[in-house]
Amino acid sequence: MEKITTRADMRHYAARHGAETGFVPTMGYLHEGHLSLVERSRAENRRTVVSIFVNPAQFNDPGDLEKYPVDLERDFAMLRAAGVDAVFCPPRAEIYPRGVPPLQMAYPDLMRRLCGAARPGHFEGVLLIVHNLLQWLQPANAYFGLKDYQQYLLIKKMALDLEFTTNIVGCPLVRESDGLAMSSRNVRLSANGRTQALALSRSLFHAADLWKNGHTVAELRSALASGMASLRTDYAEVCDAHTLEPLHDKATRKAQTLIAVAAFVDDVRLIDNVLID
Amino acid sequence: MEKITTRADMRHYAARHGAETGFVPTMGYLHEGHLSLVERSRAENRRTVVSIFVNPAQFNDPGDLEKYPVDLERDFAMLRAAGVDAVFCPPRAEIYPRGVPPLQMAYPDLMRRLCGAARPGHFEGVLLIVHNLLQWLQPANAYFGLKDYQQYLLIKKMALDLEFTTNIVGCPLVRESDGLAMSSRNVRLSANGRTQALALSRSLFHAADLWKNGHTVAELRSALASGMASLRTDYAEVCDAHTLEPLHDKATRKAQTLIAVAAFVDDVRLIDNVLID
Repeated sequence: MEKITTRADMRHYAARHGAETGFVPTMGYLHEGHLSLVERSRAENRRTVVSIFVNPAQFNDPGDLEKYPVDLERDFAMLRAAGVDAVFCPPRAEIYPRGVPPLQMAYPDLMRRLCGAARPGHFEGVLLIVHNLLQWLQPANAYFGLKDYQQYLLIKKMALDLEFTTNIVGCPLVRESDGLAMSSRNVRLSANGRTQALALSRSLFHAADLWKNGHTVAELRSALASGMASLRTDYAEVCDAHTLEPLHDKATRKAQTLIAVAAFVDDVRLIDNVLID
Repeated sequence: MEKITTRADMRHYAARHGAETGFVPTMGYLHEGHLSLVERSRAENRRTVVSIFVNPAQFNDPGDLEKYPVDLERDFAMLRAAGVDAVFCPPRAEIYPRGVPPLQMAYPDLMRRLCGAARPGHFEGVLLIVHNLLQWLQPANAYFGLKDYQQYLLIKKMALDLEFTTNIVGCPLVRESDGLAMSSRNVRLSANGRTQALALSRSLFHAADLWKNGHTVAELRSALASGMASLRTDYAEVCDAHTLEPLHDKATRKAQTLIAVAAFVDDVRLIDNVLID
């Protein structure tokens, strides 16, 4: 497994292999969710490149950035075992030699919804790094987990609007056996918090059942609220999966509906969602 | 001279010739200023491509868009005579097949200065189209006139921050023999307005002389204001050429100073500037 640490070497890799490469951008501290993206990429491309970069531009909370778990040796071992061809793991100064640039890439309407409302500047930082990673590597496909559904939606739109040649692929969220959505942040939960955190997925599954059984949006909201009553909830929303606008009643059922939640457990911000076709 | 009208054909051109191409993006209705960019490009590149596209995304005033002068046959003849290899002149639906996308690319600090303050959304539209034109053509160099100094500065920063492989080249403003800065919009001036418009360049030259002779920023501002008193002035500013922040007195003299003005004559918005090293 090749290790690449500079933008110039990413460009060299792109010139030789970009067109046959599937790309999985990550912030490291990998779990089964990441490996499912790697697996998908390996099935669809001759080569798979994973990046590991904890992008400071997308952390609106400096404390969250400091606490973000890091274990590069463990990550490398996992990627090697998963058959990854190359890992791009640059130091911060390589990515932002002049500091984080003040360029703001924004979809104002989409970004004022869900996580965008709670984390000002977060998605602008995501779009910036994803733009540049794709610019350097020029992969045929890039894989993103649907756990970060809003992120996926924004990246998909950016790739379309900025005419990227890379195909953006959204991949199903991966859960622990008890239903908790996998996240690098889960390691920061206490034993008690780990149990409490199940309220997110349980509330979502319950709401999805209600939805399938024809209940109203108001009933779903109320079920989500009571299911998550024990947590400090950031949002619990039922929305149009394309615009992220909240649905107001059954009459506004859309082709795709997103039920999404965010809550703090042990001061760790967790998100989860269910996408209903 | 090859005529290219689709994004796909721009990409094909890029794959064959991008690396040896100099690019001059324009909105058409060409004048000597544009031809000076073509000349520079031809001197520095094996091939020169010019685009002609009146970009609706950068017109904050729909009336200005409707009144923007168009004469493609005249433009083609000028470009052919100037030895241009290819012209990209797509229809609007080719560039924005889903309408103008809601993606906002912004440098908030720079964009609240000068023309950015008066034309909300203008530079966001400029960055979007320039991003995509460079994405399609992948030229070695792209040439922009310094008459639109703020535009040049923003594009230069975007190209740096988004890691474009294209080198962004700023080229000197070109004037009529009486000093008026060349602009496609000049054709909309009446004979009387054409004379009035000279107040812009005359005020600038006078201010630049004062500056060189050690006068204060306050004295420059007052000279600009009285020189342009007969016009409806949008701004008349003395600023740091890198940040576009207004200078406040002689003590803040910078390595590069920009004196820039914008005013309406016959309801036509004209801009001009002098850059002092």
